[in-house]
Amino acid sequence: MLKKILIANRGEIAVRIVRACAEMNIRSVAVYTEADRHALHVKRADEAHFVGEDPLAGYLDPRQLVNLAVQTGCDAIHPGYGFLSENADFARICEARGIRFIGPCAEVIEKMGDKTAARASMIAAGVPVTPGSEGNLADLDEALQVAGEIGYPVMLKATSGGGGRGIRRCDSPEELRSQFPRVISEATKAFGSADVFLEKCIVDPRHIEVQVLADGQANVIHLYERDCSIQRRNQKLIEIAPSPQITPEQRQYLGELAVRAAKAVNYENAGTVEFLVTGHEIYFMEMNTRVQVEHTISEQITGVDIVQEQIRIASGLPLRYRQEDISFRGYALQFRINAEDPKNNFLPSFGRITRYYAPGGPGVRTDTAIYTGYTIPPYYDSMCLKLIVWALTWEEALNRGSRALSDMRVQGVKTTARYYQEILQDVDFRSGEFTTSFVPDHPQLLDYSEKRNPNELALAIAAALAAHAGV
Amino acid sequence: MLKKILIANRGEIAVRIVRACAEMNIRSVAVYTEADRHALHVKRADEAHFVGEDPLAGYLDPRQLVNLAVQTGCDAIHPGYGFLSENADFARICEARGIRFIGPCAEVIEKMGDKTAARASMIAAGVPVTPGSEGNLADLDEALQVAGEIGYPVMLKATSGGGGRGIRRCDSPEELRSQFPRVISEATKAFGSADVFLEKCIVDPRHIEVQVLADGQANVIHLYERDCSIQRRNQKLIEIAPSPQITPEQRQYLGELAVRAAKAVNYENAGTVEFLVTGHEIYFMEMNTRVQVEHTISEQITGVDIVQEQIRIASGLPLRYRQEDISFRGYALQFRINAEDPKNNFLPSFGRITRYYAPGGPGVRTDTAIYTGYTIPPYYDSMCLKLIVWALTWEEALNRGSRALSDMRVQGVKTTARYYQEILQDVDFRSGEFTTSFVPDHPQLLDYSEKRNPNELALAIAAALAAHAGV
Repeated sequence: MLKKILIANRGEIAVRIVRACAEMNIRSVAVYTEADRHALHVKRADEAHFVGEDPLAGYLDPRQLVNLAVQTGCDAIHPGYGFLSENADFARICEARGIRFIGPCAEVIEKMGDKTAARASMIAAGVPVTPGSEGNLADLDEALQVAGEIGYPVMLKATSGGGGRGIRRCDSPEELRSQFPRVISEATKAFGSADVFLEKCIVDPRHIEVQVLADGQANVIHLYERDCSIQRRNQKLIEIAPSPQITPEQRQYLGELAVRAAKAVNYENAGTVEFLVTGHEIYFMEMNTRVQVEHTISEQITGVDIVQEQIRIASGLPLRYRQEDISFRGYALQFRINAEDPKNNFLPSFGRITRYYAPGGPGVRTDTAIYTGYTIPPYYDSMCLKLIVWALTWEEALNRGSRALSDMRVQGVKTTARYYQEILQDVDFRSGEFTTSFVPDHPQLLDYSEKRNPNELALAIAAALAAHAGV
Repeated sequence: MLKKILIANRGEIAVRIVRACAEMNIRSVAVYTEADRHALHVKRADEAHFVGEDPLAGYLDPRQLVNLAVQTGCDAIHPGYGFLSENADFARICEARGIRFIGPCAEVIEKMGDKTAARASMIAAGVPVTPGSEGNLADLDEALQVAGEIGYPVMLKATSGGGGRGIRRCDSPEELRSQFPRVISEATKAFGSADVFLEKCIVDPRHIEVQVLADGQANVIHLYERDCSIQRRNQKLIEIAPSPQITPEQRQYLGELAVRAAKAVNYENAGTVEFLVTGHEIYFMEMNTRVQVEHTISEQITGVDIVQEQIRIASGLPLRYRQEDISFRGYALQFRINAEDPKNNFLPSFGRITRYYAPGGPGVRTDTAIYTGYTIPPYYDSMCLKLIVWALTWEEALNRGSRALSDMRVQGVKTTARYYQEILQDVDFRSGEFTTSFVPDHPQLLDYSEKRNPNELALAIAAALAAHAGV
């Protein structure tokens, strides 16, 4: 078993990994930049090391992180999600320096990160993909030709993209013409590659993904699916496991496809195979070669601790479970509580948390790195808390979500919590049938009135008086 | 379905009931005495009503509470545990005023509250009880005679006792002679009845109890057992579900006995049948006719929300589950975090919570009414928080418990949290084999050194400086 792990990340996922280490009797090493000096992952890890003044550079420097792992006697690095988690070079440097990268090998990261190569692998393995260009597009002319063949609307995508960025829908040749240079420029800037490709745009799909675990010893299992259709601009807001809107046959087929996809690339460690589902059709979208933000809900329904399994696999242990050992119970929902103002176009709302009170009671889980008095720095993702609820039935899970959201207190910044309350009351959402168009199709859910909190009012009055008195 | 419920309780169980109501779309009405003006149950309920200056009287006055329920338009009262929860008169007054008492009917409360009547019912139903006196003891002479017949040691018990009070072990006729008047005096004072009876003392038993649900329509199911052997002076400290130390045959037999016991008295609502288990022998101890502090761990392993089921049953609905629908998964442990100083003979440590941070992450649940800035009043139970952990295996559940306890922050008062860390490291505890003698047999677990918390030190210095400066 691994003995000491450097966590090349921050925020709630770093805390999540510290917790897994603590439960496995593995020492954890946190890293932090100046902006994260008072971050919770720094307080909770067994050791914490400073990696620079710049808020981001220290989290994105593969060599420095691997050096630190070597110096501190770590035998592995957990990359979390985001940052370097899907950076093949990082995995390669780890390998070269004798540090275990907790994830698949560099070649697999590379292949799945290259969306056209991933498509080709899936086609070869018999996993259905959306109609699209065969590999990267040479130029706009080829793009127009392919789009003409498969029919509009099409999705123009950065080959190295991910996390919902570098994607543009084009409904006509004119749009394709204007978006083509933009996506190339965005891709070059964000991912360091100008490669783009085209896919048919699946209108109004459901985003359904399957969690897989593979031990590199030919054992591949899935932990059933997550429905991530509730998104805004390709960013997931609420995730659900299992999907309330697929048939048992679709569920079984999705699981088989995901296992087939993982086996086709000799996948190792935890990964997620994302699909677009529309009516009876299922298309492979991409595979994420890391732990995902929403891994929590698969944990809730199956009982399997995915981060601990990642560490066990990286330790060279075979999977403890066969597929038939994995069952799921009830429904889990994850609410991504973002420090954003939904009524102001979801503008980030960074600042000091004047009060945080975690919701409790049955079927409620929180994963967060915030605490009362913590200041959310403006340099990172606006997601500040994951609220996860579980109950035996769909309706009870919805009601529990509503209750937990109103139980919780996150004060000092605006959050998406109140908006999620509206979604939970919506009949379309409650019906369990929704697509990725749900959020844009329900703009009226933003028309809530903020319930005035008497404490917040008192604080505001006190602040105003103090300011007036020149205190 | 019930529409509005008055919660005749305080603290974490009142918050627990508020949450169940919120999830069921039922209005909740809290009550509070002066000492609880700032209590969390008051803040979280839909309505809150003041019931007097005295810290306790308002929670113990059946007529006032039922009047309030009628005045506020409630159709039911949930009594929680403790206070009036096993008071047959309270149930009777509710009934008379058309308020549904969420629990069994007055006659059943009365019968199970009278330990000798309960014993007689169980003997009639074929549920094994410990050898003992037939009914109440007339006098000391009878006590000595019965004890001589069944053999020492014996337990002298108050017939109306409960919750571990009014019980004394006697190892010899001399002890019985000296304890007899004491237990009578204690019983008279605490329970308003001088009746006592004798049972053979089962040396070194396991305390194992079975949760039952009965709908009053002949459906009775059990939610498996809880092992509550980790006790100090008859007060449970750590509870576990399922028991790690019984065979599948014992588990099935215990479940059958509990259902038989409930059916024998036409039980309705949630209840717990407590047994003493020693080797292969199982004896009925008592039945608690209310929700228990440790109901949480049965919820964790079965997924059933016991408080919601209580409310559904009281609404006249039939049980939604048959026995074969109930399965259990993994292990759950509940740690009763008491505001007590274990190193000072568990002396209560009331006062202001200077900081509370709830532990989070996978498999962690908290039920509490404390918050940062809350002052624990000295008038009530010292239990201030229930920390519940769950994991797929026994060992993982233990490690999760350890992690969650160190994740949590309860500052400003002494608590039992650090002591539980020691128990979790003990090889006898980890072996999963322990009896009610575990705590007295392991006094060395109290020899831990308090890890100095730098924040607490800083706060202490600041307070000392302030005091010195006369601020």
